[in-house]
Amino acid sequence: MSTTTDKVIRCKAAVAWEAGKPLVIEEVEVAPPQKMEVRIKILFTSLCHTDVYFWEAKGQNPVFPRILGHEAGGVVESVGEGVTDLQPGDHVLPVFTGECKECAHCKSDESNMCDLLRINTDRGVMIHDQTSRFSINGKPIFHFVGTSTFSEYTVVHVGCLAKINPLAPLDKVCILSCGISTGLGATLNVAKPKKGSSVAIFGLGAVGLAAAEGARMAGASRIIGVDINANRFELARKFGVTEFVNPKDYEKPVQEVIAEMTNGGVDRSVECTGHIDAMISAFECVHDGWGVAVLVGVPHKDAVFKTSPMNLLNERTLKGTFFGNYKPRSDIPSVVEMYMNKELELEKFITHEVPFSEINKAFDLMLKGEGLRCIIRMDA
Amino acid sequence: MSTTTDKVIRCKAAVAWEAGKPLVIEEVEVAPPQKMEVRIKILFTSLCHTDVYFWEAKGQNPVFPRILGHEAGGVVESVGEGVTDLQPGDHVLPVFTGECKECAHCKSDESNMCDLLRINTDRGVMIHDQTSRFSINGKPIFHFVGTSTFSEYTVVHVGCLAKINPLAPLDKVCILSCGISTGLGATLNVAKPKKGSSVAIFGLGAVGLAAAEGARMAGASRIIGVDINANRFELARKFGVTEFVNPKDYEKPVQEVIAEMTNGGVDRSVECTGHIDAMISAFECVHDGWGVAVLVGVPHKDAVFKTSPMNLLNERTLKGTFFGNYKPRSDIPSVVEMYMNKELELEKFITHEVPFSEINKAFDLMLKGEGLRCIIRMDA
Repeated sequence: MSTTTDKVIRCKAAVAWEAGKPLVIEEVEVAPPQKMEVRIKILFTSLCHTDVYFWEAKGQNPVFPRILGHEAGGVVESVGEGVTDLQPGDHVLPVFTGECKECAHCKSDESNMCDLLRINTDRGVMIHDQTSRFSINGKPIFHFVGTSTFSEYTVVHVGCLAKINPLAPLDKVCILSCGISTGLGATLNVAKPKKGSSVAIFGLGAVGLAAAEGARMAGASRIIGVDINANRFELARKFGVTEFVNPKDYEKPVQEVIAEMTNGGVDRSVECTGHIDAMISAFECVHDGWGVAVLVGVPHKDAVFKTSPMNLLNERTLKGTFFGNYKPRSDIPSVVEMYMNKELELEKFITHEVPFSEINKAFDLMLKGEGLRCIIRMDA
Repeated sequence: MSTTTDKVIRCKAAVAWEAGKPLVIEEVEVAPPQKMEVRIKILFTSLCHTDVYFWEAKGQNPVFPRILGHEAGGVVESVGEGVTDLQPGDHVLPVFTGECKECAHCKSDESNMCDLLRINTDRGVMIHDQTSRFSINGKPIFHFVGTSTFSEYTVVHVGCLAKINPLAPLDKVCILSCGISTGLGATLNVAKPKKGSSVAIFGLGAVGLAAAEGARMAGASRIIGVDINANRFELARKFGVTEFVNPKDYEKPVQEVIAEMTNGGVDRSVECTGHIDAMISAFECVHDGWGVAVLVGVPHKDAVFKTSPMNLLNERTLKGTFFGNYKPRSDIPSVVEMYMNKELELEKFITHEVPFSEINKAFDLMLKGEGLRCIIRMDA
């Protein structure tokens, strides 16, 4: 048992006081974990677009002051009542969505959308008692998606923690907490391309390139990257992308361009932009008879997906996925092993690194669209 | 070799001379089979809604005079050049779509949409030489979907013939040529409900009830039949339908009604009406996380499928199927075996029988919506 067990921990955290304003490193108090909760020491965290999205809070419920952050790697400091499968010292990845192992979704081998711990971006408190574990001078600071990893210590529900191989380098595998697993799983678990097949990837950001990495791992022979930002094409080659299509270069819809390139359509497509037109194109560019399109990107809430039903009747499949269909606790440890076995290449996603004190630089990089993942070192 | 080999056969056929006018039993000449063709003696045929649809020819290219019919059982009379896997005396089911075994679709284990022999409702001739094998006094009579089974003899491409167990009663298994296999395969091959699961079937005609039969065979515990014709509910019980929903009985959309009945949605749905609103309801009534909706019914050509992409991102799957994803030559023989093994019950689909001379009665029954399948005995 550590000397901090059952005690409040005072540590540094990057607090978002207001929408769109730079985070401020503050000294916060982190209360001990309650029932089914775990307090972890974060060693590395990385910035995902979703953090920026809820920091900007445009069209979102503003929940401030808040500690953002949801991609991270850490070590268990102490556990609350009822936690039996984690103990101090365990290496863990916090995940923004959970796995209670009790609900119909957790018991289904087809779903990872846990009823109890499914992502909730509006909630700023712990589900056990509807209060926050973070405070500054007694004033609560809100949580973010149950993880709040922009803090030296955080409290997370046990169902949102994947216990991983302690030999895995946390400064690399921390990026498996969200975006990389999302794209990778969309391809490996949902699109399931066969060896030698063709795959189109819409959107060549980190999630799309993780989807491409999945296609490379599955042995796809053609990986067609689609993006309106031509600057992304060069980097994408590292991820096995073999051909590029910039929809802006064509008068005709991109699905027609891809159908012409592939004698009728690709075998699989993965949509990672969230733009409704790209979603429709990603569906309509798959081959009849066997094509499968997988939607990953989250659309505007008023978006409507429209297509001719004949596109479906001609034996195309349209699926959506959430967190790559991975169950956080059951499946993410094996994704870490894919990296340990050198099947999955993570280094190429990590383009930047900053000390915690310079976390706002990571936001600047993402806002400028530079790089893929920026690792934030908590000890620096 | 039969005495008729290589000779023109004169026999009776029911000719549709004009759209919507009663068929006329005529003496027709049936030319010998050409390259890759087979001439078969039809023993039993049945009427499917698609025959009536192209006979009415509303909004369709009128192709007359024509010999309709595409659900049937027969015996091979003679084979043309290049036909090696059928010989006189073989029992066969003609199918409106084919399997060349050479194209990308036939070589894919996921598709049955053969490039060469895919259904073509506009074509009234054989693909080998673009002429008809049927004539009356030298005037050609057009084929229908490559089968034209409303004739004592017909000529069919070898790729559109399933060679079946000669012990199977052709007056029963003839209905596996089209509608029953379509519905059955939609459930067994595409929706794939697990034992104990819930399945909603939209449209309780022959195809929908065949989909229900598939759900019963798969061990579904709840089979919810949806139809705006309440008269169909009683018959549907024989097919394992456990509950009924008439959308007309509710103010709210039927997908909401079903979600309330099933704690969030059914595990699987199969849409057999072709109405676009039913297609959308069938998709939106499946459970998030694992629900799969399968579209079978053919929509109006201008129909547009619309849904919120969030319905997909919440891990629902939307698929379409054609002929239940069965490959005619490779798979239909095993469906016949399901009947022979008493797993599949066909008798309950057969509600009427008429002699060939009274074929127009079968049309009357279908136009009145009476019964499911009417067997037409060619020898009577």
